Amino acid sequence: MHFASDNTSGAAPEVLAAVVAANAGYAPSYGAEPAMLRVRDRLRTLFEAPEAEVLLLSTGTSANSLALALGCPPWGAVFCHEAAHVAQDECGAPEFYTHGAKLIGVPGAHGRMDPGALRDAIARTGAGGVHGVQRGMVTITNVTEAGTVLTPAEVAALAAEGRAAGLPVHLDGARLPQALAATGASPADMTHRAGITHLTLGATKTGCLGVEALILFDPAARWEGELRRKRAGHLASKHRFLSAQMEGWLADGLWLRLAAQANARGAELAAGLAARPGVRLTHPVEANMIFAEWPAGTAERLRAAGAALYSWPLEPGREGARLVASWCTTGAEVAAVLAALDAAL
Amino acid sequence: MHFASDNTSGAAPEVLAAVVAANAGYAPSYGAEPAMLRVRDRLRTLFEAPEAEVLLLSTGTSANSLALALGCPPWGAVFCHEAAHVAQDECGAPEFYTHGAKLIGVPGAHGRMDPGALRDAIARTGAGGVHGVQRGMVTITNVTEAGTVLTPAEVAALAAEGRAAGLPVHLDGARLPQALAATGASPADMTHRAGITHLTLGATKTGCLGVEALILFDPAARWEGELRRKRAGHLASKHRFLSAQMEGWLADGLWLRLAAQANARGAELAAGLAARPGVRLTHPVEANMIFAEWPAGTAERLRAAGAALYSWPLEPGREGARLVASWCTTGAEVAAVLAALDAAL
Amino acid sequence: MHFASDNTSGAAPEVLAAVVAANAGYAPSYGAEPAMLRVRDRLRTLFEAPEAEVLLLSTGTSANSLALALGCPPWGAVFCHEAAHVAQDECGAPEFYTHGAKLIGVPGAHGRMDPGALRDAIARTGAGGVHGVQRGMVTITNVTEAGTVLTPAEVAALAAEGRAAGLPVHLDGARLPQALAATGASPADMTHRAGITHLTLGATKTGCLGVEALILFDPAARWEGELRRKRAGHLASKHRFLSAQMEGWLADGLWLRLAAQANARGAELAAGLAARPGVRLTHPVEANMIFAEWPAGTAERLRAAGAALYSWPLEPGREGARLVASWCTTGAEVAAVLAALDAAL
Amino acid sequence: MHFASDNTSGAAPEVLAAVVAANAGYAPSYGAEPAMLRVRDRLRTLFEAPEAEVLLLSTGTSANSLALALGCPPWGAVFCHEAAHVAQDECGAPEFYTHGAKLIGVPGAHGRMDPGALRDAIARTGAGGVHGVQRGMVTITNVTEAGTVLTPAEVAALAAEGRAAGLPVHLDGARLPQALAATGASPADMTHRAGITHLTLGATKTGCLGVEALILFDPAARWEGELRRKRAGHLASKHRFLSAQMEGWLADGLWLRLAAQANARGAELAAGLAARPGVRLTHPVEANMIFAEWPAGTAERLRAAGAALYSWPLEPGREGARLVASWCTTGAEVAAVLAALDAAL
Repeated sequence: MHFASDNTSGAAPEVLAAVVAANAGYAPSYGAEPAMLRVRDRLRTLFEAPEAEVLLLSTGTSANSLALALGCPPWGAVFCHEAAHVAQDECGAPEFYTHGAKLIGVPGAHGRMDPGALRDAIARTGAGGVHGVQRGMVTITNVTEAGTVLTPAEVAALAAEGRAAGLPVHLDGARLPQALAATGASPADMTHRAGITHLTLGATKTGCLGVEALILFDPAARWEGELRRKRAGHLASKHRFLSAQMEGWLADGLWLRLAAQANARGAELAAGLAARPGVRLTHPVEANMIFAEWPAGTAERLRAAGAALYSWPLEPGREGARLVASWCTTGAEVAAVLAALDAAL
Repeated sequence: MHFASDNTSGAAPEVLAAVVAANAGYAPSYGAEPAMLRVRDRLRTLFEAPEAEVLLLSTGTSANSLALALGCPPWGAVFCHEAAHVAQDECGAPEFYTHGAKLIGVPGAHGRMDPGALRDAIARTGAGGVHGVQRGMVTITNVTEAGTVLTPAEVAALAAEGRAAGLPVHLDGARLPQALAATGASPADMTHRAGITHLTLGATKTGCLGVEALILFDPAARWEGELRRKRAGHLASKHRFLSAQMEGWLADGLWLRLAAQANARGAELAAGLAARPGVRLTHPVEANMIFAEWPAGTAERLRAAGAALYSWPLEPGREGARLVASWCTTGAEVAAVLAALDAAL
Repeated sequence: MHFASDNTSGAAPEVLAAVVAANAGYAPSYGAEPAMLRVRDRLRTLFEAPEAEVLLLSTGTSANSLALALGCPPWGAVFCHEAAHVAQDECGAPEFYTHGAKLIGVPGAHGRMDPGALRDAIARTGAGGVHGVQRGMVTITNVTEAGTVLTPAEVAALAAEGRAAGLPVHLDGARLPQALAATGASPADMTHRAGITHLTLGATKTGCLGVEALILFDPAARWEGELRRKRAGHLASKHRFLSAQMEGWLADGLWLRLAAQANARGAELAAGLAARPGVRLTHPVEANMIFAEWPAGTAERLRAAGAALYSWPLEPGREGARLVASWCTTGAEVAAVLAALDAAL
Repeated sequence: MHFASDNTSGAAPEVLAAVVAANAGYAPSYGAEPAMLRVRDRLRTLFEAPEAEVLLLSTGTSANSLALALGCPPWGAVFCHEAAHVAQDECGAPEFYTHGAKLIGVPGAHGRMDPGALRDAIARTGAGGVHGVQRGMVTITNVTEAGTVLTPAEVAALAAEGRAAGLPVHLDGARLPQALAATGASPADMTHRAGITHLTLGATKTGCLGVEALILFDPAARWEGELRRKRAGHLASKHRFLSAQMEGWLADGLWLRLAAQANARGAELAAGLAARPGVRLTHPVEANMIFAEWPAGTAERLRAAGAALYSWPLEPGREGARLVASWCTTGAEVAAVLAALDAAL
């Protein structure tokens, strides 16, 4: 009953098999292996972006931070949701990579930036001339930190606020496959056609060992991206093991199937939670992350029963919890945690 | 005939098997998996350093740069051999991680810093008070960039220059297993007993997919190291795949066996080269890297025959070349490249 | 009628005379001139801090940023009022000097951080372990950005929140003389006895040409402070002109007299504004900065009449304004702007 | 007998008078005062560069570092003479401002970079592709650190090496007035017509209190320059005192007269030294800095006689010394130090 995070899961068998296959023999290092070209071309096709450039990195934090460094100067502001991963969970990596940019949190219900609030934040920034930080970049997260999913139109509405101010727009897609699976949107519609210029396509959480693609829809950014990746220590020498993961994951629609599985288990879990007395879903469940509140002490009893999850205290007598379904979560695991919940409540 | 670099080789079967085995089921993320504790304890035992702390990273550049950032302030000088990897081949990663430290190249024959030159460089630095950068850290490479091997006594002599000035001393051990195999020295004698405070233990080149251990002999540096690793985007979420590689690699002396194999093939190759007329070894061959010079055009003919290697022009009529034997290089490959060389000369 | 900022005023005659006097002959450079020792000793006496160290800088932004860099690591959080100068008006200088620290805005009425809100912000920060930025430093502004003045007890209450978490506490005293003049508090009670560890003592606004003292109550920070000042390009070669200003300004209580003059004119102005129909003071006026709101269009008419001030639109029909009295503002200037206001309303 | 440095001198009377005059009344802050426009226009005229933009800073280190940050990315190399001030005497300020660029020392006799050595250094840099730092910027010093003077043709020859590689070229002109006075070259011929793109025009050493002009011959760099200056804490609030110095200094050719005086005293001093038995000038004396060697113990005896100078030990029995004449050095002072030398030898 592992619901603490989708990164407690392993790699999909197909991905692992691709890694094993890639181990045979010698291969050029540092991304010069032929598989990297295939990965790039596959992503160009999938995203209908024939000019896009691709850099592989081993973590989401590095991919996000590198994207922000490419789009925002050291004296710039990055506009993000106030609960965004880049703002809350990366220990200042964006500030490190950008050499000191300022992240400005934009409010919005259920993890979605409010477009009007974003517009206001952009308008306020730089209004003091040289005395304040300047408008730098917008970054949007989809699936959001609250587990909600933005439609292409919602992404486009936020991106439009940035583009109207001349800003590049990054999408943190640590769980983009889940967002695509949930909406049925095409990768192109969800990203560059909606105004996204830099994309972190997360693969680690959804079936890989550790690889993320930074997709640059403006190919002119590639060389600077390569230099920044190298000096951050993120250019893998045996890079073939990154490209192999990505190639295996993208083959035959596996990436979207794995995401759909995670979403399906998330939906089952959400339905089960919502049906329990005393349990309330605190955000709409639209992908594979579930946020709920329930009587205090419930999480402790669930853990005693063998479940892994996050929880935190709320007002007296209540507690909040986050459960995440993974690509490999089974219906039996969902049923088991719901049964444990029945016993715990 | 792949002699361009040891990073064109794959992973040893035992290491790959460990990765496959680690994929089963769920595991805590971000280094909280039980295997990480086993890796730490194994390294403590192997290095006879019961208090040492260990951070795993996916690249040597990040491990080196993180070590330098832990030991040298932004206004400090890092003393290294003038051909050191940190100075020449990391695109400014040490400067990035340290926030601007200055690398000061120290001369020395065959990749070894001259202790007197190191002493002079340290003495000169900071002599101008607040106007110049301050003494920061010493970093030593073993196996050196010239393919030579430092004995524990040689490491200790260099480290002593740093320690006499109160400086921490880093060892870039991208090929430390080869140095240990070549000298028969114990890991402890080669490192902390010789005055080393921070160690990059490279595993990628010698049989892993991509993992390096940063060993902190002063355990007080651990927490800052963890924070710096995280904000550099180098804390892997599915960290189990790093610890699995390291655990498999360290088991049953595999790491030293693989290094010894590489050295043995290097020695065969060196002997073969030295015996060819017109070929001269430019550095003593003490591990798995061979530097030679030979008639111009030779490298091109070798490549036409299917060999991979590095070469560069020298004075008219001559060229320099680097060939590296890997853990998986076979005697047949060595024989083949020598035969090709006979044809090329 | 110059009320835009106290930095549109010049230097007090005594300060200018000190600069002129300092010009005679040769003097050691880079702070080695005898006057610097006198300045240090004078500040030690005035602040009853016999061990304190002093660095002079030419701007408040550099003094503040240097203080933050001394107290907060690159992965730390600086807790400040959400309208603080360091957060809003220094173009990312704190992020630059600290190598990427994150400024966390704490709310509070009339420019004062709410102690409970500060406590909550500190408590939240670092709770996520290695994934988030760590608690770094607290910075308090007095006179606040809203023109209010903290008593020593109020400073102490805020500093206590920081100290309870083990954090150093900086005071941005760009207008500290005004705060001292307004409260009658001793410099010691307002600063180190209230828990302040790093102080920016602003002199530029209150009668100097351009000099600020960074006072380090922990003398162990001096050397690192000197190095950071030098590499920021803030170690003046002809440093005698900084120490001369400071010496002239501190002599015979001039600094507090100038501040008291500014406060007195501020009080007259505030009284005059409050007495006008349609004008409302939006913050208590406790020093030399006045914030008001009045009918839209008033500021434009005042400017047409020759007054300099800041203004901004509010809800329909109203506008906000800031007026600052300087050390050299005369009663006649106050009367003139009030007369112009009567005509404008 | 003050010959330690030209920064132990004070300000010229005309410059001080300009500062005193600028103190009258109120003035817009942060460079918006009318005098700043006059300074810009005056420099445009003097340098025959009608589009150039000008930023004033209070120190040479900040002006140099800001120039390098405008021209060189964090992953770039700055090519400079191996004894350059930016490399040896700024405590890592260039690395701080550029966010980690690498300074590469180029050899050359008597403080002049050897053009061939510069070409080689540029050619070597970046040849390793993404693995090494990239070609960034060239910086030339005139008057050099050895007291020699480059002619416009020599500047152009060095700049041409940079421009051929597509690099911007900075001139550190901390003593540019002396170089202009020595050669009689026009400011334009010595700078932008010789290929210089960024100029630090030093005024502090030659008669000001503390001001340097960063002249951007490409006006497109202005806004980024303003932002970088602000976040470095170098935008003076009472900026009128910087522009007043510069205006007074540039008026009526004062700046060149002061430089010529310094050079004349330097020539007298050099002639006197060269005529003394046992004294040898170690670099040609072409401006106001003299480097000599003489019997060990001489400097100590000179200091005992009241002279200020720099000295350092050489081979047994000899010592090196640096003496600098200032704009205000008198013939009597030169005679006095020579007399003291006669006594000391």
